[in-house]
Amino acid sequence: MDKDIYQHSLDLHREHHGKLETVSKLRLDSKEVLSLAYSPGVAEVSREIARDPALAREYTLKRNTVAIVSDGSAILGLGNLGALAAIPVMEGKAAIFKEFGGVDAFPICLDTQDTEEIIKAVKQIAPVFGGINLEDISAPRCFEIEERLRKELSIPVMHDDQWGAATVTLTGVINSLKLADKKKEDAKVVISGIGAAGVATARLLLAYGIHNIVYCDSKGIVHRGRIDLTKEKIELLAGSSAPVGEGTLADAVRDADVFIGLSKPGVLSQDMVCSMAPKPIIFALANPTPEIMPEEAKAAGAFIVATGRSDFPNQVNNSLVFPGAFRGMLAANIPQFRIEMFTAIAEALATLIAEPTTEKILPSMFDAGVADLVSETVQSFRS
Amino acid sequence: MDKDIYQHSLDLHREHHGKLETVSKLRLDSKEVLSLAYSPGVAEVSREIARDPALAREYTLKRNTVAIVSDGSAILGLGNLGALAAIPVMEGKAAIFKEFGGVDAFPICLDTQDTEEIIKAVKQIAPVFGGINLEDISAPRCFEIEERLRKELSIPVMHDDQWGAATVTLTGVINSLKLADKKKEDAKVVISGIGAAGVATARLLLAYGIHNIVYCDSKGIVHRGRIDLTKEKIELLAGSSAPVGEGTLADAVRDADVFIGLSKPGVLSQDMVCSMAPKPIIFALANPTPEIMPEEAKAAGAFIVATGRSDFPNQVNNSLVFPGAFRGMLAANIPQFRIEMFTAIAEALATLIAEPTTEKILPSMFDAGVADLVSETVQSFRS
Repeated sequence: MDKDIYQHSLDLHREHHGKLETVSKLRLDSKEVLSLAYSPGVAEVSREIARDPALAREYTLKRNTVAIVSDGSAILGLGNLGALAAIPVMEGKAAIFKEFGGVDAFPICLDTQDTEEIIKAVKQIAPVFGGINLEDISAPRCFEIEERLRKELSIPVMHDDQWGAATVTLTGVINSLKLADKKKEDAKVVISGIGAAGVATARLLLAYGIHNIVYCDSKGIVHRGRIDLTKEKIELLAGSSAPVGEGTLADAVRDADVFIGLSKPGVLSQDMVCSMAPKPIIFALANPTPEIMPEEAKAAGAFIVATGRSDFPNQVNNSLVFPGAFRGMLAANIPQFRIEMFTAIAEALATLIAEPTTEKILPSMFDAGVADLVSETVQSFRS
Repeated sequence: MDKDIYQHSLDLHREHHGKLETVSKLRLDSKEVLSLAYSPGVAEVSREIARDPALAREYTLKRNTVAIVSDGSAILGLGNLGALAAIPVMEGKAAIFKEFGGVDAFPICLDTQDTEEIIKAVKQIAPVFGGINLEDISAPRCFEIEERLRKELSIPVMHDDQWGAATVTLTGVINSLKLADKKKEDAKVVISGIGAAGVATARLLLAYGIHNIVYCDSKGIVHRGRIDLTKEKIELLAGSSAPVGEGTLADAVRDADVFIGLSKPGVLSQDMVCSMAPKPIIFALANPTPEIMPEEAKAAGAFIVATGRSDFPNQVNNSLVFPGAFRGMLAANIPQFRIEMFTAIAEALATLIAEPTTEKILPSMFDAGVADLVSETVQSFRS
């Protein structure tokens, strides 16, 4: 990243004092409007909602408003910088929610990193919101927080670092396999990095029907002989058909069709790419510096390279998913996300590229119809 | 209130699905803007804030954003209707914040009515906000919640039901005494209703230099012989110079110069008004139905009558205070409200009426310069 972008971004943030503002849909320019928007007229709205709580959806911002909740424990690729440092990221996310999905969103940056306290705080602030977008909360706490909130709240909850990344990655995998003329049933996939995004990506690939998956973490191949496995890793191993034992990432990627990195800069070498099956497909998604730079991967024979960056082809960008996904949930009043929705979104997004090429396996967030398609896909799950 | 206002208000709320939306200050219409407002540029903003937390004020919405926090326990005059029913009121308040004070505000309606849980939740969500406006939280919990949050947070906290009502009432009292040619040192004031607004009004009158105050609650005159006194009532008694013993409201108002009702409809009779000192000044602030209707009070000899309603002269309207008060606190980065600020605001607002009349002792929220004056008054307390 060049320094100019950073300085320019600082200047822009200082000039505007942030990015988000709250605006009334009504101009309060007369006593008459005030008497309807506020006292005394609003009393009747409160009474009606007290009589029938479902009316909050009709009469208030709840219908179209999402909380973007973070504890600042895993901000972008920067690590645990805390609640205040999370604000500009969550404001940016809120701006994207509105621009691309027409969804109102507000940042809730929590001054606690305790799992139970986060769950409790989110439940306590939930009345105003129609959905909860969890963001930049570190693994493994993010799994329990999402799971518990989905059970204990009656509004949709989604940890975007998990499902946004996973869904767009699956979209890219679908189009890549198509281009390479490989079948999902046969493809061998290696996932490097079993954090928030890695676990969700693995779960989503399994749900989609890709079962030959080898997982690698900082200690090498994840296998049943290890005594340090989290419950998520045990679950993922149970879902995979790949025969695995001790080994390194280099061992894992040998003969693999697809490498998905959600881990660290530079962990994939050119030699490893050379050792993969023909037409190697590389998702090097570590941000801002990928597991291997696209030009190096290409030089080593990579057929397709995707990264998380906007300055290379094939950007895996969460923003393709969350605005439309929440818009659909809110519009159709669907109580909770399910994994089938994300595989369906990935398949729908893949169809947006009529003729995939190695440089264009994914739609751009600026393509017309992305949020509409995602929203409609979600709404098809209305029961 | 007539039914038309209520039906019209319901229709308006249903049509717009509430009143508040979140809007980005920047149009995200190109990759270039996105790279500054969001990743990768925003990473530098997060890093800078992590390095120096005070920069959150420069780079984020925190500088100009207030949380409107309610537990729905005392919504308008409607009682304990809960968090969902509080939403439309808090949205309306947020709209007023923006329209009259240029302050961004967002409703936080809490799904708990436990004092400790409310305090904890507000502290946990505080990072995003530059101030906390507590709203429609019932007494006596509101006193402890405000006091504790003021001590435990480094941003301004104000319970508007207390200080908004108290400040505007004091403004009205100042201009009323002037019109009646009475001195604050001599005036006998009766306050009926020692809840949130009653306690704050009493505290503010005492701070202003009115000391001959008799307090009445649902059991009659508050005096030292009673065994049911809250700590607030004991404190207020200690501040008053009025000699009091057992008695009813009727006993209390005899020879009083000012009656301030923050209690219940109809508790002040015409006979009681007749028993007051010459030129009786009546603040009948119960909402929507006052302690005595203005025409009845006038018929019984009232010199001045103020109510909480916009359809009579002399409306005591909190909205005169909170937009400008928070704007001033945010602009000058003042860490906490102090009672001297509210007496100063009341005195400043009183001067906005160059020539008070019995029908015009208070400015209107639509008068030019109200929020500016309040904001400047607050900013004069910058240390």
